[in-house]
Amino acid sequence: MIKIALDAMGGDHAPKAIIEGAVQAAQNSGGRFEIVLTGPQGIIEAELKSLGYQGGGIEIHHAPEMVAMDDSPSTVLKSKPNSGLVSCVTLQKEGRVQASLSAGNSGAMMAACLMILGRVGAIPRPAIACVLPAFGRKIVMVDCGANVDEKAQALYHFGICGSIYAENILKINNPKVGLLNVGEEEKKGPEVLQEAFQLFKKSSLNFYGNIEGRDILHGTTDVVVAPGYVGNVVLKLMEGFFELAMKSFGPLLKTTDEGKNFLKEWDYSNVGGALLLGLKGTGIITHGRADAKVICNGLETAYQMVKEEVAKKISERLSAETVAPDKG
Amino acid sequence: MIKIALDAMGGDHAPKAIIEGAVQAAQNSGGRFEIVLTGPQGIIEAELKSLGYQGGGIEIHHAPEMVAMDDSPSTVLKSKPNSGLVSCVTLQKEGRVQASLSAGNSGAMMAACLMILGRVGAIPRPAIACVLPAFGRKIVMVDCGANVDEKAQALYHFGICGSIYAENILKINNPKVGLLNVGEEEKKGPEVLQEAFQLFKKSSLNFYGNIEGRDILHGTTDVVVAPGYVGNVVLKLMEGFFELAMKSFGPLLKTTDEGKNFLKEWDYSNVGGALLLGLKGTGIITHGRADAKVICNGLETAYQMVKEEVAKKISERLSAETVAPDKG
Repeated sequence: MIKIALDAMGGDHAPKAIIEGAVQAAQNSGGRFEIVLTGPQGIIEAELKSLGYQGGGIEIHHAPEMVAMDDSPSTVLKSKPNSGLVSCVTLQKEGRVQASLSAGNSGAMMAACLMILGRVGAIPRPAIACVLPAFGRKIVMVDCGANVDEKAQALYHFGICGSIYAENILKINNPKVGLLNVGEEEKKGPEVLQEAFQLFKKSSLNFYGNIEGRDILHGTTDVVVAPGYVGNVVLKLMEGFFELAMKSFGPLLKTTDEGKNFLKEWDYSNVGGALLLGLKGTGIITHGRADAKVICNGLETAYQMVKEEVAKKISERLSAETVAPDKG
Repeated sequence: MIKIALDAMGGDHAPKAIIEGAVQAAQNSGGRFEIVLTGPQGIIEAELKSLGYQGGGIEIHHAPEMVAMDDSPSTVLKSKPNSGLVSCVTLQKEGRVQASLSAGNSGAMMAACLMILGRVGAIPRPAIACVLPAFGRKIVMVDCGANVDEKAQALYHFGICGSIYAENILKINNPKVGLLNVGEEEKKGPEVLQEAFQLFKKSSLNFYGNIEGRDILHGTTDVVVAPGYVGNVVLKLMEGFFELAMKSFGPLLKTTDEGKNFLKEWDYSNVGGALLLGLKGTGIITHGRADAKVICNGLETAYQMVKEEVAKKISERLSAETVAPDKG
């Protein structure tokens, strides 16, 4: 049985929305996976009771310490090992669950996954992959902000991570990989992108070449590779654009089918969170403002990733493709 | 009298749309400025005649050579000095006009401005500034793609350029300058941004600090400073978003006042092109697909820049603030 640990106390709407999401996912799972809620046992039990949940599929792992949103990520591991956040990753390391999910302090969750599970390949920190809407389809962008000042090989490894994710989870056959740049020609843009272009070119990936900003929206490629800084700016701009559209004419859009489709497609709460790729394990971070639906989607994504062995496939490929091993 | 040179042969819809734009601008100018159309005299005369234009305010400078969109920018200066594109910049160098505008080969226009007019400060290539919509106001982003792998001092100079533009042209008093990054804290993001943060912090600019992707749309600051690579991605993504909104529900939006306002505000053809800042002169590049309205707006922007002495103010400030002079 696949088990997924969920930090019950992380996020703006914890524990209520988190536990509601767990209950929804347990009901949808139909016995495919079970959820281990990590946090203070009494609080979780009371919340489950108030939701009237009596089914199976949910366990509790008592973890009384609390991680705040502004706790320093680097100290949480040592100072709060018995928090919901840290213990869900520890359970995975011990083999008691196969994936970990938190809507809490994202820096701390990143640190916990990196330090407890470990990483693979030439990526200094596990890359953040996000699934984005693109005219009725889904694409994946890597990295959305975990890394800074990456070398060309790390960018290449982002492409491998994204390609394996797109193939196994988005079910895209031989996914096209694009490098986000300022123009099509291979001699365009920052030096690190020009170097990465050459690595992609001689790889076995289905490399499309350089793409530009608008190609993200048009879904020109299934995988968008960007430095963490740039991916982060793009992601936040896209979220901002959706908020702007909602604010400016959300009610108007709801009056037509095409408008409703747009709102549904571009609503980021339909996306199951940020996937940490390049880890020896499966870690997912969701927005602090995650509601029950986001958590439920995140758990489903975690299940798919475990079932399809995405982390294992990425580990094997990155280890094989690391030219200059960097065990840092 | 302020005179502005306009490359009559540059752009997808040249010469017709370009010359139409010149005629509109000449009519709107009310004697404030005159336009010098550069290109083959016969073609321009025929076009003016077919438009029935008989007023003053437009001169022709005969320049028979043609620059193609795919001509190599580095060779156009030598191989086609008597083209509409090169000669409008040459006229400026000779003091016969005070600004130059082209919708043609943008790399060639950039090269012409850089080589013929020269640059100032620590910016390797004149920065591209673009005016963006932000909830009913206008903000300016620098650099939108002229530079790559910039040093911290260049980013700081982008901020000076943008600040002077916002103050003199957008008429914003003491404009707020933001550095596009992945988070608020000054230790966030790429090293070059952390260095630039310190330069801004000790400057006399109204430095707001780091901003994130969504802040661009919200108009958190009047000036957005970004490396050329990142600014270019952002600009193309925003253009793509507008196209997507138009395509998905343009007709629906046109049924209400708020929708019409959105379309008007976000229509990039209302913006007068990309401004080259950090030049010893005034150069503007517009989209290759520029129509008469874009050209007319571009000429008006050029006039305002000359009248407010934007290039001179930037030159003086950048020269004074260049710590390690780089005359490269």
